Amino acid sequence: MKKNIKVNAAILIIGNEILSGRTQDTNTSTLATWLNSIGVKVGEVRVIGDNEKTIIDVVNLLRKKYDYIFTTGGIGPTHDDITAESISKAFNLSYEIHKEAFKILEDYYKPGEFNEGRQKMTMMPSKANLILNPTSGAPGFNVENVYCLPGVPSILKSMLGGLKHKIIGGEPIKSFTISLRTVESEIAKSLTKVQNDNSEVEIGSYPFFHSGKLGVSIVIRSENQNKIDKCRSEILKFINEKNIKIVDR
Amino acid sequence: MKKNIKVNAAILIIGNEILSGRTQDTNTSTLATWLNSIGVKVGEVRVIGDNEKTIIDVVNLLRKKYDYIFTTGGIGPTHDDITAESISKAFNLSYEIHKEAFKILEDYYKPGEFNEGRQKMTMMPSKANLILNPTSGAPGFNVENVYCLPGVPSILKSMLGGLKHKIIGGEPIKSFTISLRTVESEIAKSLTKVQNDNSEVEIGSYPFFHSGKLGVSIVIRSENQNKIDKCRSEILKFINEKNIKIVDR
Repeated sequence: MKKNIKVNAAILIIGNEILSGRTQDTNTSTLATWLNSIGVKVGEVRVIGDNEKTIIDVVNLLRKKYDYIFTTGGIGPTHDDITAESISKAFNLSYEIHKEAFKILEDYYKPGEFNEGRQKMTMMPSKANLILNPTSGAPGFNVENVYCLPGVPSILKSMLGGLKHKIIGGEPIKSFTISLRTVESEIAKSLTKVQNDNSEVEIGSYPFFHSGKLGVSIVIRSENQNKIDKCRSEILKFINEKNIKIVDR
Repeated sequence: MKKNIKVNAAILIIGNEILSGRTQDTNTSTLATWLNSIGVKVGEVRVIGDNEKTIIDVVNLLRKKYDYIFTTGGIGPTHDDITAESISKAFNLSYEIHKEAFKILEDYYKPGEFNEGRQKMTMMPSKANLILNPTSGAPGFNVENVYCLPGVPSILKSMLGGLKHKIIGGEPIKSFTISLRTVESEIAKSLTKVQNDNSEVEIGSYPFFHSGKLGVSIVIRSENQNKIDKCRSEILKFINEKNIKIVDR
């Protein structure tokens, strides 16, 4: 963990099934929560289709703009899994069998089961470093600052533990949430004043509807706990003055 | 509906709460499913934070690249709701009270309840057209091909009905799904052949784990039903030869 250094990342979700609406992406939320917890702020997310030129262009753009990129999807055995080959082209590296990955899957599958489709999952950019997969064998990989993970959410989650030591975050982003039995328009003016007086803190206001009642969650985010605490006091002050009830949420 | 014309769109999700992982976006899936059903293909999705410059830059880039853009989030009453003002700047339009929106909310709220925060929700780019909101009053709007919707999923959903006649789609994208009791590597080679022989059809392969069993859904997508049917026959042929069971999913 680097103190007082801001580290950022982009998430690139690859898959026609997200763009068609067929599949609800949950990897963004998983990755973003995890990255924030280790001090990496997510600057943007893009969802793109299984198109080689698009993957190459977007990866080459994002990898220069952000400290890290995390891709999800497209590293399985079928024809629509083109992430590894596209990343090879983005870095001008050859797309070839990764010996260590081959050894892992050769050991993972029973004799005779390590077929052509499964062998495809060992094809990667030369110089790729493996990201081990404790769930289903086939590893992810990274080339420089581009980390390629699978699209299946449970498998992706299981790989984050092994990835943690490779990602060097900055000061973790802390947050504090206050949930209120009110509507946004009741607190908008007071909250704007607090935000203006605390410009280095990020204050978000999120309406919710829970158990038949409306409410608002105010989220204060910053790398600096003292700044969060100051902000929190100012918010609690106006909440108290307005007689607004704090609720669990 | 235009025959044989391809119409595309980009979705722009605006909100720090998605980038922090706090909130799981579901609007992408809602919008993408709806757009596909009316013949609009989603080309890309981006998630960006509540940052004026970023919103302006991305909107100006996407609106030239796609037939339609749909933004979600940032049109509420609080300080972090900056979409309407940012869109005004993107189009070099003044950001002002929209008279019709003002009238709608003046009627919607009880006397005395139409406070400053709520009045902010009537501030829009001049020349904006309203998108009516049957759930909570405050309208969305569009300027040219940029359609701005709220972030709250239930409200967004309720506004799509009123939006339908404004969006002119092309030939609807049809799809057919076959779910199989198999693993991807078993069918990868045969499926690649079918895809190569049917290059104008999009074939996706998606592993699933359901009721304790592994399976694969094959999704065939095209504007042309005959091409889907041809593809389906070829897939059913190899499935039959391999003795793979078709399952409900």
